Amino acid sequence: MSTQALLPHLAWIAVDWGSSNLRAWGLDEHDQVIAHASSDKGMLALTADQYEAELLRLVGDWLPTGSQTTVLVCGMAGARQGWLEAAYLPVPTPLDQLSQGAVKPALNGKHLSVYILPGLSQTLSGASHFDVMRGEETQLAGLLSDQDNFSGLVCLPGTHAKWAFLEAGSVNGFTTYLTGELYQLLVSQSVLKHSVSVDSLDDVACREIFIAAVQEVYKAPHAFSSRLFGLRAQDLLDSSLPTGTKRGAVLAARLSGLAIGLELSSACRQQPDDQSITLIGNQALCQRYTLALNAIGYQTSNIDGDTAVLAGLCLAHRALKA
Amino acid sequence: MSTQALLPHLAWIAVDWGSSNLRAWGLDEHDQVIAHASSDKGMLALTADQYEAELLRLVGDWLPTGSQTTVLVCGMAGARQGWLEAAYLPVPTPLDQLSQGAVKPALNGKHLSVYILPGLSQTLSGASHFDVMRGEETQLAGLLSDQDNFSGLVCLPGTHAKWAFLEAGSVNGFTTYLTGELYQLLVSQSVLKHSVSVDSLDDVACREIFIAAVQEVYKAPHAFSSRLFGLRAQDLLDSSLPTGTKRGAVLAARLSGLAIGLELSSACRQQPDDQSITLIGNQALCQRYTLALNAIGYQTSNIDGDTAVLAGLCLAHRALKA
Repeated sequence: MSTQALLPHLAWIAVDWGSSNLRAWGLDEHDQVIAHASSDKGMLALTADQYEAELLRLVGDWLPTGSQTTVLVCGMAGARQGWLEAAYLPVPTPLDQLSQGAVKPALNGKHLSVYILPGLSQTLSGASHFDVMRGEETQLAGLLSDQDNFSGLVCLPGTHAKWAFLEAGSVNGFTTYLTGELYQLLVSQSVLKHSVSVDSLDDVACREIFIAAVQEVYKAPHAFSSRLFGLRAQDLLDSSLPTGTKRGAVLAARLSGLAIGLELSSACRQQPDDQSITLIGNQALCQRYTLALNAIGYQTSNIDGDTAVLAGLCLAHRALKA
Repeated sequence: MSTQALLPHLAWIAVDWGSSNLRAWGLDEHDQVIAHASSDKGMLALTADQYEAELLRLVGDWLPTGSQTTVLVCGMAGARQGWLEAAYLPVPTPLDQLSQGAVKPALNGKHLSVYILPGLSQTLSGASHFDVMRGEETQLAGLLSDQDNFSGLVCLPGTHAKWAFLEAGSVNGFTTYLTGELYQLLVSQSVLKHSVSVDSLDDVACREIFIAAVQEVYKAPHAFSSRLFGLRAQDLLDSSLPTGTKRGAVLAARLSGLAIGLELSSACRQQPDDQSITLIGNQALCQRYTLALNAIGYQTSNIDGDTAVLAGLCLAHRALKA
């Protein structure tokens, strides 16, 4: 819900409109945040003709009378099944040019002027290199606000973890891993649900087994599928495991390590270990990935996901005005 | 349900009692099948005190009056949550000695004498080599009915695919892969459900994409997780894919190939390619695995799963009488 009404200094509005929620920021002419609102009406909860009303419900109070306010949107609102499709830009794509692919949905009212940013697509030779992202490209663009020729490997952990290789401010290529979704399916729907509970890497035993599992699958990714059932067998046979609730926590930490280890065995394959990897995401997930990456010899730097997406929207907004 | 009543030549009864169903065979003194019955009352549908009644419901008509009939059971009925736990025998285990680990549940009636065979367990050094099987050991024992010193690599494809290495009639080690369950979860519960339907390897296009996916992950198992999301991206971007229902079938074939390819990249790792692999299971699954194994250079021989389990129960019954 809206946190503030009547904003005399409002210059424009930034929106991150994802699958399951949206967040809106009101900004002044110096791109300082002066209001914030959010709701759970993500793309999955809306039909195309409901977006404008939902946006007005959230930010209507912020708007001046008599003039039109620019709203810049990134994320799944631009998907085919969203508000209006903003066709993917093919990589390589300079991240300061995202706004060139923006689309403008037709509106009923006259107070807003809405731009929806595109995602990125990759169509390399061979069936194995198709990939898409929508929303993460704006977080990546946020890296350019401090360093406009940013180069390096960037990881955005999550349900569908994205790894992008940036060179001089352009995305040269990227790969999506189903890690988070795979973990959730295994924890909640598979035979392993009888063995695992919720882990916390604050616990030393969980942290140790997580790290060992990352290293194990990183070295031998082919063993991933057998290690999954092995976790069930370990629960049945291993008398050295803790009892009670800690048993499930330790096994969940191992499962998480196996899933992330498989991702890293591919994502870090060509990365020299003297080059730091940039993580963008929420704190807990970035900490987990930092632990995993450190365990296989990589250093990381972390950037908050909300900070990154807002910085990316500001960059795109400046390009739109130019 | 029972297919025949009143069996004057009944010598004993063989039962394969799995998680989700059971099958019973009435045999004469030469181990010829003279009756067959089945039901969907597997371990998951029964409490321990319901097994005897369910068995009598199925085979009660077969039984002679005045004498006791031996019933030999394999499978999940011997699990901790089954009829009566038959503790795992640790590998290495000679497969002609399974009956030495059999347990006898207490019965209410006097017409039956029931023996439940144990499964096998593996507890090698390190957390990664725990494994268990229950039911498959009896199918493996069936291999000894033709060749009592059977040696070789055996694959039992399924929800939880088992690979066992046999030497002179003993199981020296085995590994379980979550392949079938992983495939089902991805097809029915993940983001990929929007892209896949049911494939048939009778279709040439499906067969070709299946084989290519097996070979791809066999060579690069680390890429498995990214190839999963790549399948979704391919559906969004690849204009060369067929349209209509065939599109989903082709992508399902690719998903199946990715899952089986990951399994084979581990299971065949140390297998010389001049040695045939024995497959035990249903025809469709054995055909699929044969196609996959041939594509990476291995020959196979196939044995029907029901034939194998019955042969294994006969072997155990002879050992029980000796």
